[in-house]
Amino acid sequence: MIEPISDFEAYPYLKNINVPEDLRKLQISDLRGVSNDVREFLVDTISQIGGHFGAGLGTVELSVALHYALDTPRDKVIWDVGHQAYPHKILTGRKELLHTIRQKEGLAPFLRREESEYDVFGAGHASTSISAALGIAAARDFQGEDYKVVAVIGDGSMTGGMAYEALNNCGILGKNVLVILNDNRMSIAPNVWALHNYFNTLITNPTVRKFKDTVWDVAGKIGNNGDRLRFAGSKLVDGMKAVMTPGMMFEALGFKYFGPVNGHNVVKLVEMLNFLKQEKGPLLLHVISEKGKGYKPAESHVQRYHAAGGAFDKITGTAIAKPVTAPQPPEYMKVFGNAMVEICKTNPKVVGITAAMPDGTGLNILQKELPDRVFDVGIAEQHAVTFAAGMATQGFTPVCAIYSTFSQRAFDQIIHDVSIQKLNVIFAMDRAGLVGADGPTHHGVFDLSYLRLIPNMTIMVPKDEQELRDMLFTATEYRQGPIALRFPRGAGVGVALAATGFQKLAIGEGEMLKDGNKVAIVGVGPMLSQAMKAAEDLDHEGISTAVFNARFVKPIDAALLDGIAERFTHVLTLEENSVVGGFGAAVLEHFARTDAHPHVRLLGVPDHFIEHGAPGELQKEIGLDRVGIVNAVRELVAVSVNETIKVG
Amino acid sequence: MIEPISDFEAYPYLKNINVPEDLRKLQISDLRGVSNDVREFLVDTISQIGGHFGAGLGTVELSVALHYALDTPRDKVIWDVGHQAYPHKILTGRKELLHTIRQKEGLAPFLRREESEYDVFGAGHASTSISAALGIAAARDFQGEDYKVVAVIGDGSMTGGMAYEALNNCGILGKNVLVILNDNRMSIAPNVWALHNYFNTLITNPTVRKFKDTVWDVAGKIGNNGDRLRFAGSKLVDGMKAVMTPGMMFEALGFKYFGPVNGHNVVKLVEMLNFLKQEKGPLLLHVISEKGKGYKPAESHVQRYHAAGGAFDKITGTAIAKPVTAPQPPEYMKVFGNAMVEICKTNPKVVGITAAMPDGTGLNILQKELPDRVFDVGIAEQHAVTFAAGMATQGFTPVCAIYSTFSQRAFDQIIHDVSIQKLNVIFAMDRAGLVGADGPTHHGVFDLSYLRLIPNMTIMVPKDEQELRDMLFTATEYRQGPIALRFPRGAGVGVALAATGFQKLAIGEGEMLKDGNKVAIVGVGPMLSQAMKAAEDLDHEGISTAVFNARFVKPIDAALLDGIAERFTHVLTLEENSVVGGFGAAVLEHFARTDAHPHVRLLGVPDHFIEHGAPGELQKEIGLDRVGIVNAVRELVAVSVNETIKVG
Repeated sequence: MIEPISDFEAYPYLKNINVPEDLRKLQISDLRGVSNDVREFLVDTISQIGGHFGAGLGTVELSVALHYALDTPRDKVIWDVGHQAYPHKILTGRKELLHTIRQKEGLAPFLRREESEYDVFGAGHASTSISAALGIAAARDFQGEDYKVVAVIGDGSMTGGMAYEALNNCGILGKNVLVILNDNRMSIAPNVWALHNYFNTLITNPTVRKFKDTVWDVAGKIGNNGDRLRFAGSKLVDGMKAVMTPGMMFEALGFKYFGPVNGHNVVKLVEMLNFLKQEKGPLLLHVISEKGKGYKPAESHVQRYHAAGGAFDKITGTAIAKPVTAPQPPEYMKVFGNAMVEICKTNPKVVGITAAMPDGTGLNILQKELPDRVFDVGIAEQHAVTFAAGMATQGFTPVCAIYSTFSQRAFDQIIHDVSIQKLNVIFAMDRAGLVGADGPTHHGVFDLSYLRLIPNMTIMVPKDEQELRDMLFTATEYRQGPIALRFPRGAGVGVALAATGFQKLAIGEGEMLKDGNKVAIVGVGPMLSQAMKAAEDLDHEGISTAVFNARFVKPIDAALLDGIAERFTHVLTLEENSVVGGFGAAVLEHFARTDAHPHVRLLGVPDHFIEHGAPGELQKEIGLDRVGIVNAVRELVAVSVNETIKVG
Repeated sequence: MIEPISDFEAYPYLKNINVPEDLRKLQISDLRGVSNDVREFLVDTISQIGGHFGAGLGTVELSVALHYALDTPRDKVIWDVGHQAYPHKILTGRKELLHTIRQKEGLAPFLRREESEYDVFGAGHASTSISAALGIAAARDFQGEDYKVVAVIGDGSMTGGMAYEALNNCGILGKNVLVILNDNRMSIAPNVWALHNYFNTLITNPTVRKFKDTVWDVAGKIGNNGDRLRFAGSKLVDGMKAVMTPGMMFEALGFKYFGPVNGHNVVKLVEMLNFLKQEKGPLLLHVISEKGKGYKPAESHVQRYHAAGGAFDKITGTAIAKPVTAPQPPEYMKVFGNAMVEICKTNPKVVGITAAMPDGTGLNILQKELPDRVFDVGIAEQHAVTFAAGMATQGFTPVCAIYSTFSQRAFDQIIHDVSIQKLNVIFAMDRAGLVGADGPTHHGVFDLSYLRLIPNMTIMVPKDEQELRDMLFTATEYRQGPIALRFPRGAGVGVALAATGFQKLAIGEGEMLKDGNKVAIVGVGPMLSQAMKAAEDLDHEGISTAVFNARFVKPIDAALLDGIAERFTHVLTLEENSVVGGFGAAVLEHFARTDAHPHVRLLGVPDHFIEHGAPGELQKEIGLDRVGIVNAVRELVAVSVNETIKVG
């Protein structure tokens, strides 16, 4: 699949552009044609393979303008998140590989320094670009260089606190940095940014617009009416400029605000960028763009086209159904969303909290049924968790539905605001384990380790979609402090799913799934279904293998482990989490405490960052599948040949 | 020591106030007297015991006004950080115990829910109050209640991104929440908040003040000059209000801005609070206060009196010297600061980064010598780390000097922006281990666990102040990605300290400090000096004990551990870090990988939050000292009596 394509005949401008140098040889009047080509090529390619899509359509002209007006890669452009960077990839030597994006060995899903010198700073999580840009500008100034540094950040990312921290610091340092606010008024989910409303009022309100014109006019006239009025008049213009532009927040933080400008007028964008190249200090350019621009189905269904899950019909936008051999089990996300509805209907104290991702977490299902029970706080994971803690002090049981990888942003709040105070906040961490095409920035393979070290925390991992239901219910009934459950992206394992009703699980109790007498596999999560198959294979080989579902990573099931240590000479721990400090380490800590000495091997995600690719491919690569488990047990059993090893 | 005091005769108003109810029985004209009493009592008490001081002096009148105007604890006041909450503690039933603050079993250093129903939400780390307040307000509205919710946040905490996330979300939700910005224009270190400059211009600039008056005047007059002018005139007032108040950032985020008001005029504060009780929606009251107000030495040396390290003379402010029997070794912080100066003088690529704490990290030493080599980014740990990552992409080697506990705020940035990209950023984590009087919110006992799980990370722990120098130097020479070193609060162990020059350490190599033949203690950090003494004690008892300094937690010294497993039947791991997932777990993981089976016991910080108290007291309590180590080894050796344990 990772074959470059070479036929660009359908794109008369793009066919001659490999790197921005080529672009800069063109006339400014050619840039509309270039933009059209880039957009067409993007739609043609993504409609065949799927991928993040809407954001890129919104930045076609901006990408063309930036690489035309600036001297990239000498000038540095830092893209926030990276969803918006597909046109940038097309223009910087990677058009021939765009169709490989998000595939194993193919182009990275976001920005990636190893991939291109034009990718100045890696991305994936939101709101990092201004900080990185400011760091680069500080380095530049130390070295006495004068290149331009530009951060391009969407309005969604602007709700993240670190963007504000960086704006503030940039205002203080007064560095020459241009921040481009790419405002598609939509972020991932609408209406989570207060400035939206504010901008919209100022830009669209006809009274305000008319007043602005009038004031300019009046200010000219009252200049003749004596000193006092003249003084007022001259100040009026400055004053009104501040009131009438939507940039006063940025001005207050020490930025010069420019805009808003139309993000789809490539000529105006180039002119503005050329003008701004002469300006000094922290600058903010406000660009108004449309997510999905130029592709009708995406313009009208912005959230659906934020990312296309797979190929779709270019004309209608309808997804092209993949050949399905059997009906797929429901997605964990949806099982979670449905269970939330059911629980919220009977328990008035439960609410759901999302950081700008109701659709990506299943909370949209609850939002539809019981809209006032969902809080969408914006891309603001830190606030989400402490907001939940605040609610918990008043007897509520908030469920923070945040992806495993994004929960890293709220690590301190989970410790400081929730766990120290032993508040009843539930962390429902979706996308735990290997997430696939989104790659190393998005894999949720650290949560068991970073949650386990927190005192007062309880951690559950459902082995299947039914256990997810029961664990969520158990969590809402639990009153002893914070409790987390983590579950993967994608479809369940296909077990029978109760339509209604829940079973409350005993905290800290695991279960035996299959008996055996030589090797015990003890693990958590849906990977146990692979373990069950592996155990059958091993039984056939004469290696009698039991399988245990620990269910709880914390508190660990001491009785279960003691029984295992007593009955089995060999133990394989299994988790779709880092082998450093995770479930396996918990088992080792227990065995050390009890001075138990089975031969133990930890199977999980190895201690390096895992690239992007299909989850199945990645699991195979790191030996986290049926075959990998069989191999790990074989190796483990082989050590017992060396029976000279003594305890102590 | 934890004896309440009962003699309040010197404070004629305060003697009759135990809880806010008592305060509310007084006339408003009495409140100046109350404020004076609270201030006097605070100075009298803290001058005897030390403690956070400056911030509390700045909030005396505000605390009196809040408890007078509001119906606490029904109305909820949430204090950010908690340094500012001493007057609040005095007024809410705890004056008799104020002298016990920060002592073991005494009053908590910050807010604490278990301590008082008036402590609505715990604090310690900055910028959490608005999130908590909004959560409480959301809960209130669900329950159909109508109490007031107030967050009091300093200007320093306003540089933290989560404060902005919360403001934004509050603006969207439109909840009835009052945020009081307690602006002492100083935060912990000056000039880290862009809005400072902005506020100062608007509040103090005489032209702006005069213009404001003029415009109001003019606006009245031009009302007669025809429709067009009248229209402009009427709008002018609104417009000018926005320009002329320093609150436009808050207005843009959906808040109604009020102020600024004098934070030391208690009557005006009460009037303003009474007025605001009638207002709806998100409100921001801007209060200007002086840190250290009313105590001359503190007013003129704000940073020194942020916290008083111990008793001081009430009149002169001079610290009362503690009886010293021997000269104290230098503090780790200062050793770090001096080493930074030395390194920066020879290596032009090294810079220091602090999150508003140059004085608290030793970077003030570098700031004095080479001011342009230190970046103070405000209370903004997330930004600090990604800013460092940006600099690192351009060949710089930034040293992020952030306390262990505050680094938790940047956990995601350490993973996502630094480690995935393998950038050469150094994390110098001061205050690692038990910090003492600041208690559970400030102990740095998780870093080894949360750093260890991060791929590409290298982690060093100096055993003494000389090794700290060498490790810092080693880090600046290391070019293979992120590297962290963590060291404790307070004085070094007293080893000979090289005046200049450094030794570069081999990555991943530990050392033997003392040989033995039955038990091996292997650990990291200054706790090893206790282990050396314990080993001598054990030798005398006939338990021959060796001591190893692993130096590196990651990569762990495999050869050292293999040698230990070969030679010793019993291994005690030692760290001033959680026993969950930390150094001890790394040792267990290695022994599992190599199928080594010594008897292992993990000694470290147990898996619960540790209260406040002197570090020595706390270490003793959890068995992390000479005696504790001896006891742990004795217990460990006792298990070997049971030699029936078999491997596997």
